[in-house]
Amino acid sequence: MDANRDKQIRETLLKNEVGALLLWRPDEIVMATGYLPLWGISVCIYPAVGKPVIYVPELEPADILPADFRIQTYPWGIIECADPWKELYAYLKADLDVLCPGQPVSFIKHIGSSAPPQIAGEGAPLPLDFIDQLMALSEGRYKDLTSEIIGLYARKTSDEIEKIAKANRIAFLGIRAFYEHLIPGKTEVEVACIVETAIQSQIGKDDIFYAKGWPYIMAGVNASFGGIYARNTGKVLQEGELVMIEMAVCVNGYWCDITRTALVGQTINTQQKNIFNAVETAQQMALEMIKPGVQARNVDKKIRDYFQQTEFGAYFNHALGHHVGFRYHDPGMGFNPNSNLVLEEGMVLTVEPGLYVQMLGVGVRIENNIAVTVNGINLLSDYLTTWSLIH
Amino acid sequence: MDANRDKQIRETLLKNEVGALLLWRPDEIVMATGYLPLWGISVCIYPAVGKPVIYVPELEPADILPADFRIQTYPWGIIECADPWKELYAYLKADLDVLCPGQPVSFIKHIGSSAPPQIAGEGAPLPLDFIDQLMALSEGRYKDLTSEIIGLYARKTSDEIEKIAKANRIAFLGIRAFYEHLIPGKTEVEVACIVETAIQSQIGKDDIFYAKGWPYIMAGVNASFGGIYARNTGKVLQEGELVMIEMAVCVNGYWCDITRTALVGQTINTQQKNIFNAVETAQQMALEMIKPGVQARNVDKKIRDYFQQTEFGAYFNHALGHHVGFRYHDPGMGFNPNSNLVLEEGMVLTVEPGLYVQMLGVGVRIENNIAVTVNGINLLSDYLTTWSLIH
Repeated sequence: MDANRDKQIRETLLKNEVGALLLWRPDEIVMATGYLPLWGISVCIYPAVGKPVIYVPELEPADILPADFRIQTYPWGIIECADPWKELYAYLKADLDVLCPGQPVSFIKHIGSSAPPQIAGEGAPLPLDFIDQLMALSEGRYKDLTSEIIGLYARKTSDEIEKIAKANRIAFLGIRAFYEHLIPGKTEVEVACIVETAIQSQIGKDDIFYAKGWPYIMAGVNASFGGIYARNTGKVLQEGELVMIEMAVCVNGYWCDITRTALVGQTINTQQKNIFNAVETAQQMALEMIKPGVQARNVDKKIRDYFQQTEFGAYFNHALGHHVGFRYHDPGMGFNPNSNLVLEEGMVLTVEPGLYVQMLGVGVRIENNIAVTVNGINLLSDYLTTWSLIH
Repeated sequence: MDANRDKQIRETLLKNEVGALLLWRPDEIVMATGYLPLWGISVCIYPAVGKPVIYVPELEPADILPADFRIQTYPWGIIECADPWKELYAYLKADLDVLCPGQPVSFIKHIGSSAPPQIAGEGAPLPLDFIDQLMALSEGRYKDLTSEIIGLYARKTSDEIEKIAKANRIAFLGIRAFYEHLIPGKTEVEVACIVETAIQSQIGKDDIFYAKGWPYIMAGVNASFGGIYARNTGKVLQEGELVMIEMAVCVNGYWCDITRTALVGQTINTQQKNIFNAVETAQQMALEMIKPGVQARNVDKKIRDYFQQTEFGAYFNHALGHHVGFRYHDPGMGFNPNSNLVLEEGMVLTVEPGLYVQMLGVGVRIENNIAVTVNGINLLSDYLTTWSLIH
């Protein structure tokens, strides 16, 4: 158990006079307990006072369950038990009655914009009436703490930052494979598979039981749409193209979000070089501004103003960054023109200036992940920002 | 547009006196329109009368949008538009007022148990109040057709069956790679990456823009837990182990669900062989029973009774099969003891007997996908059911 995380949650509950949080979205369970539900259908009661309980389906592997939490299995499978959910709800109700009798309870009601799924790309097998059932068992005591729960995502503990740093280190293995396989004739999806293999092959080493890289490789004209969409196609890499890699690396439930851009071959033209250099300069400018107390929208503005001073001002069409760590995109305000975020020590964010010039078929983004420290940043993705390993 | 699918939907709406379906879960959009939303945040109004409309974020690639539907883009990104959702809701409301003024509308309210996500393992970025907003714009006209919508998943058209058959053919490339790489010393996750690469490498060929294999490799003792959970670990494959591969192959939005079991090396012991042969026999028995009019629970019972006659009756602990095609697990009743399903022509199901004998460290499952035809089955996964390519 992470004592700092525990303290944050308990203080939020006590301050809002809520007896317990019900956590059921896989990413919020990682945030609260450090445990990544393999099947995505675990539920946690986190009480203001008393020991938290995690209810896991009996098919969950025991070796990934966290210490220091009470674990209660519930049955699974229509053969042994006609309705496992009914048993789960009964457990929840009985324990809520003991842990916080009569007190308000809170939970987020929608899975949208959440929940990295665990099983083969299919969402967690929640019944259609799952939220209605949670509402029924809280017996009118529901209190909406959605924004407070989202606030809990934003302030990472030092243990959590180390786990996100580890995801960043694993991501580097994919980035290196990317640089090494920018070979004319390979397709985007072939390079993506090589990168994915570099990431997943870490499973079984260094306590890693879950690692995915989700790389998207976008070459030439596809990179020039990089601010718009991300996918791998059968496009063949060609000499002289700039290629972007966008990665969402998840290691044991902790995420990073990294982009690099590099050249196929050794011949870069002046426009490509100017665009690349502008993005690289913007990246450095942003990193230098970040520290506690800074308004996030001012960092975004600085970069937007800088691009306006170049010939590429029209081509930075997205936000400068967002929280990251319990998901590919953590909730809450990040670096963008409408943001109210004031940076605090312990926040982990992406910094991702990019320029996408479709008429030139050139797109460049460089994305780093940083943790805000007491007087600046810890650059979690402190590796290779170059258009070529050999230039 | 698939005329048979269109007819099914329109008839369901007219019969239930509902003016339009609102479809927003990616898998139900595939079911209704054949279009796989890349970002997972497209919405379709399917009216009882009139041309269906699909609302897509402007970041959706144009080349994957379906013909014969009206396409309306909505803005995306906080830079160009502060609230893209507000614009989406306004479009929906205006079109509902034209397409079905004053008539009831219906939609499924929960994303749980649905929605293959498209972007890097993160769920579709739906706002927390998405369903509330849909309710608000339907102005009290909401009518619950959840079970009818689930019914629409079960009856596949001939075009859809061909697309699911294609997913099965792509899956074979993964199965072949699996057999070829059952080499002592390789880890489960290494073999999984080889299989995934074989599947994804089909992107860009034969109109395939999306292909994922999601293989799980379970070796020896891990296979003996195969009825319980699925994951890839760093376990090293050892000579004489039976290894299971479980795959959820998705090609352009159409899914198959395949399992094979095979031996590392050439030395199989008698118990392994007996378990394998029992499962293979059960698979054949099930396939021979399936045709229109048959009660699904009777097929399940036949297999359960057969295993009881062997020494392994206690080790078949899951259902015999489920609908498949628009997801890894389509909704609705399948082959299990509590099922009310009566088989009909056009249904596509898995058939997956398995035995998991943990005290022997042996697990065997063979899973095929079939389409019910007028007088029997079309075996969509008509390939390799053997414990060794070389025995």
